Amino acid sequence: MVVIMRPDAPNEEIIRLKERIEKENCIVNLVQGENCCILGLIGDTTVIDKDKIEANEYVDRVMKVQQPYKKANRLFHPHDTIIDVNGATIGGNKIAMIAGPCSVESEEQIIEIAKSVKESGAGFLRGGAFKPRTSPYSFQGLRLEGLELLKLARKETGLPIVTEIMSADMIDRFVQDVDVIQVGARNMQNFELLKELGKTKTPILLKRGLCATIEEFLMSAEYIMAGGNENVILCERGIRTYENYTRNTLDISAIPVLKRLSHLPVVIDPSHSAGMWWTVEPLSKAAIAAGADGLIIEVHNDPANAKCDGQQSIKPDKFKSLMGDLGKIASIDGKTI
Amino acid sequence: MVVIMRPDAPNEEIIRLKERIEKENCIVNLVQGENCCILGLIGDTTVIDKDKIEANEYVDRVMKVQQPYKKANRLFHPHDTIIDVNGATIGGNKIAMIAGPCSVESEEQIIEIAKSVKESGAGFLRGGAFKPRTSPYSFQGLRLEGLELLKLARKETGLPIVTEIMSADMIDRFVQDVDVIQVGARNMQNFELLKELGKTKTPILLKRGLCATIEEFLMSAEYIMAGGNENVILCERGIRTYENYTRNTLDISAIPVLKRLSHLPVVIDPSHSAGMWWTVEPLSKAAIAAGADGLIIEVHNDPANAKCDGQQSIKPDKFKSLMGDLGKIASIDGKTI
Amino acid sequence: MVVIMRPDAPNEEIIRLKERIEKENCIVNLVQGENCCILGLIGDTTVIDKDKIEANEYVDRVMKVQQPYKKANRLFHPHDTIIDVNGATIGGNKIAMIAGPCSVESEEQIIEIAKSVKESGAGFLRGGAFKPRTSPYSFQGLRLEGLELLKLARKETGLPIVTEIMSADMIDRFVQDVDVIQVGARNMQNFELLKELGKTKTPILLKRGLCATIEEFLMSAEYIMAGGNENVILCERGIRTYENYTRNTLDISAIPVLKRLSHLPVVIDPSHSAGMWWTVEPLSKAAIAAGADGLIIEVHNDPANAKCDGQQSIKPDKFKSLMGDLGKIASIDGKTI
Amino acid sequence: MVVIMRPDAPNEEIIRLKERIEKENCIVNLVQGENCCILGLIGDTTVIDKDKIEANEYVDRVMKVQQPYKKANRLFHPHDTIIDVNGATIGGNKIAMIAGPCSVESEEQIIEIAKSVKESGAGFLRGGAFKPRTSPYSFQGLRLEGLELLKLARKETGLPIVTEIMSADMIDRFVQDVDVIQVGARNMQNFELLKELGKTKTPILLKRGLCATIEEFLMSAEYIMAGGNENVILCERGIRTYENYTRNTLDISAIPVLKRLSHLPVVIDPSHSAGMWWTVEPLSKAAIAAGADGLIIEVHNDPANAKCDGQQSIKPDKFKSLMGDLGKIASIDGKTI
Repeated sequence: MVVIMRPDAPNEEIIRLKERIEKENCIVNLVQGENCCILGLIGDTTVIDKDKIEANEYVDRVMKVQQPYKKANRLFHPHDTIIDVNGATIGGNKIAMIAGPCSVESEEQIIEIAKSVKESGAGFLRGGAFKPRTSPYSFQGLRLEGLELLKLARKETGLPIVTEIMSADMIDRFVQDVDVIQVGARNMQNFELLKELGKTKTPILLKRGLCATIEEFLMSAEYIMAGGNENVILCERGIRTYENYTRNTLDISAIPVLKRLSHLPVVIDPSHSAGMWWTVEPLSKAAIAAGADGLIIEVHNDPANAKCDGQQSIKPDKFKSLMGDLGKIASIDGKTI
Repeated sequence: MVVIMRPDAPNEEIIRLKERIEKENCIVNLVQGENCCILGLIGDTTVIDKDKIEANEYVDRVMKVQQPYKKANRLFHPHDTIIDVNGATIGGNKIAMIAGPCSVESEEQIIEIAKSVKESGAGFLRGGAFKPRTSPYSFQGLRLEGLELLKLARKETGLPIVTEIMSADMIDRFVQDVDVIQVGARNMQNFELLKELGKTKTPILLKRGLCATIEEFLMSAEYIMAGGNENVILCERGIRTYENYTRNTLDISAIPVLKRLSHLPVVIDPSHSAGMWWTVEPLSKAAIAAGADGLIIEVHNDPANAKCDGQQSIKPDKFKSLMGDLGKIASIDGKTI
Repeated sequence: MVVIMRPDAPNEEIIRLKERIEKENCIVNLVQGENCCILGLIGDTTVIDKDKIEANEYVDRVMKVQQPYKKANRLFHPHDTIIDVNGATIGGNKIAMIAGPCSVESEEQIIEIAKSVKESGAGFLRGGAFKPRTSPYSFQGLRLEGLELLKLARKETGLPIVTEIMSADMIDRFVQDVDVIQVGARNMQNFELLKELGKTKTPILLKRGLCATIEEFLMSAEYIMAGGNENVILCERGIRTYENYTRNTLDISAIPVLKRLSHLPVVIDPSHSAGMWWTVEPLSKAAIAAGADGLIIEVHNDPANAKCDGQQSIKPDKFKSLMGDLGKIASIDGKTI
Repeated sequence: MVVIMRPDAPNEEIIRLKERIEKENCIVNLVQGENCCILGLIGDTTVIDKDKIEANEYVDRVMKVQQPYKKANRLFHPHDTIIDVNGATIGGNKIAMIAGPCSVESEEQIIEIAKSVKESGAGFLRGGAFKPRTSPYSFQGLRLEGLELLKLARKETGLPIVTEIMSADMIDRFVQDVDVIQVGARNMQNFELLKELGKTKTPILLKRGLCATIEEFLMSAEYIMAGGNENVILCERGIRTYENYTRNTLDISAIPVLKRLSHLPVVIDPSHSAGMWWTVEPLSKAAIAAGADGLIIEVHNDPANAKCDGQQSIKPDKFKSLMGDLGKIASIDGKTI
């Protein structure tokens, strides 16, 4: 951590601050620049509160040197993490393909789609039971009934199931019923939920918040890991920008950046990213080409009658042909799909 | 709602879509433009799912005419809402001044600050007991002990207390102990929490999410109101933009915009907005000048030792002199402070 | 164009507005909704000024139906445009690879790099002579001397040259010396420059502004095309977002979106997008996988001593190996490189 | 400047980099942290190219300590700059009120509005002759004829005139005819134009680019000042964010921030900020309350028939009543209007 003092900071205030910081077990190097004085902090600065130092009126700015996350940090864990999901894997040489409808609507629907995506080569089934909707007047999901239907589809196809949790009181049920628990973008900083999930061992697919920085995203992963659950999968799903032709802007650079900063697997959601069915194919191909460990794609057998997100779902035959192309791209990096 | 068809949409598809929409009790006007056909929908279109229509491959875009919120909408409720908080009010001619520390730290601290802000004219005491922190390694608040200390401070000063809730399992306790329940920016779209709060009657101070649009903000208020609790106070606290000299960018225009679209009171948080103590004064004055119904300000007697947000807290004497200026600005619009 | 009246708009004002719009040769359909009245405009609405209508105090909002660009619009020009650059092409089945240093530094440097990228298969040479720099104290390019060196490199290798223009007074010189004139992101809305370039016939590589919407980007292309020069190449180079780990955020979705809305070729700049050498490779692969017509890449033989943008330049051997991978990805779509 | 090395940086590479930097007349302090090594640079680091250092593959990040602008920097020029405009002033205790139509349309129009705003107390007349328009099909201004009409209005009222320049070839004419030359947001980084304006002595009203950071904004001012013209007025006019209910988002915090970082006067444009006539009044009041040195406001006698920006113009009587309120707010800080 580097503390830049204001040019008008009196010497005694600088010394006072230096001594205060040293009490937190850091060594402080004092460097006198041309116009101002700089304090260079050495030691475990993750325990030092940047805001507290910035509250000092003689401090101009504080700059972090060390990343504030530890367990998610590749620096202390150089090898890629491969997450085991009841025998299937996320991370490593096999691309994880997670496919299925936005929301579970009926037994017939979820089983038909599950069979179809499995046939095309998907490794996991997605489907929303609890649905976060912007409007209180929109369909909120089949909830517990939806969970039961997902279990039926798993029984039928053998595909592990991935579904979203929306509140901590459902954790016991999810741990029992679900293979991968998804935390949605809007709950990425629901810290009470993250803490509770940290007490389980179930793999967590953590979606990046709509306007979360890479660092905040990794800090939310850190919340879960610090609690004891290191099975975290990072999912980029488009961020909010000024551009509104697309619903969100897929931050494709997040793939190499996250993989450089962290050892956790990175999965892309090409459906929510732009929010339009006709961009799913090019974005999926781009994600695999850029090194993503997997994709989570909305597939629906009848998008125009889907209860939600029909506009960004692709049909099963489109998914099938896409799988072919993705396999070719993956093979360039020596991966399979 | 207006549906714009693609130029290549076959006539029979347009007719099919028209008929499908008419089943949802809307009248559909078909207007043939130069290059494409447009459907104009009349009736209660809040029940119609925009995404579902956009899933039709012959639809180019869907544009909403009607605002999707009803209870929060000034159109159906032309007069300003004034919220009663055990005799005190938010909204109307008296500016609501909510002041206090970022977090409750000790009995001495909270009582000293409470007395001081009361003396300067504040009408409400703020103070965090449950703290949402980006890092799992940062101080997470005194939690239930913090709530007890707030109650002591209320007893001592008579000031109603405003504090943040972070999970639905605390609602009963908050309803019993707290005068205004705050929902933080990171939980603005924690829909399960909003639904539960809708079942109470306690006033809710709802903070705008870091990247929530005005419409999404009002839809979150709508969630609470649709549940039966119409005592919602809107709080703008800075949004995330590309500019990072300031922590967030105060969207000052949100004041006139929210007041035009909704009848709910609008409060500004000048502390989190820019995140620096020296911008609190100018932003507070700007907010009152622009027509805000109140302010929620972080005041701390020893910012450099505050357990959080010290860098954006002002000292009691600064708060006192600020109150004087704010009173003069308020009086221009015939308001008091 | 759809005009939404305010609910309180008096009938005579609606009629007055309707008549005023009809004078501009549009047919106006009046649709009475539940809460407000809507005017649907038919005809060539690109001549109607949205702002003028919104100035009417009884108008709530105006929504455009028709895209405001004509010559750049795929609707009126369904087939992909292929731009001829003295025999080479941009657009079509052969991916255009434009490579070279950020800025021309010396004869030796530009010729060495030109030979090297040609050997690896690049089809065009890039190199900055006039450099837009944020600081007046930074290297501003070799300017006219740089142009001469580019011409030498072209003579030596046969590669057509692409370089940036910064002011209209240089147009004659550029038309004479350069094969493709680049308009930088910061000049995307330098309308006087665009108008003058519209009078030439030289291909223009138009970079998207740092915060230009897709529509504004296409309107800037329209400026050039409306002047008579239809040889415009669109270049996405990263947009500005709240995320600042990367310099900019590559809007990868812009590729399918631009290709759907327009017939012009789309080229990606993976170097400026994230601004870091180690993201160039994954972003290049992603761009080709998503359907880009070409790439413009910074290659430098000694990045650590480059006069600018060294941090985002790759070395010649990296470029060579990248070309191999890109060829494989391109072939999946039946393209060559 | 602080250079953070990667944890895997070999010692000899660190030494090599240290020596290279020392050749640029900086002293380099080497601090060995827990996981990585840090170089602290002392001296005039504005000449050191951050990008060049970041091109070194063993460098993790470079952080600037010193602001890169000198002439615009309050550090080296502690007192507020007051700009003299032929006897009138911008900066200091008298608020500069610049008012007039978006564009000059006719002799009658400009003279009528000029008289009216003067009567209400405006000190300067604004009016566009050269108009930057997103669409090539929109009204582009009366251009030279517009300049002549502005001169007539000045003759009639005595108000100094402020108008926008769009290309460097017009500078001689503007220097001769105009009192304050405006550089529009879209030309804030038209560096060739800035350099040429730096050679004049005419006051420049420099508008912040739509997505320019505070630092980039001050660097553009620095371009003009470095050329020799220190008469620069900074104008915040709204930035581009994800929120699109308003056309732009007024960055009200920019007022205290710019005034802390720089000695140059700060003027706010409340018309372009949100882009709607009904937000002009609250935003104007907020700007003065937050400490702005002036306002530039669009006033039109017939907004609904204005040739541009009618939707964000206020009428003369509204301007008059606004002036009254602004005077009261200004007086709280001991200023006049």
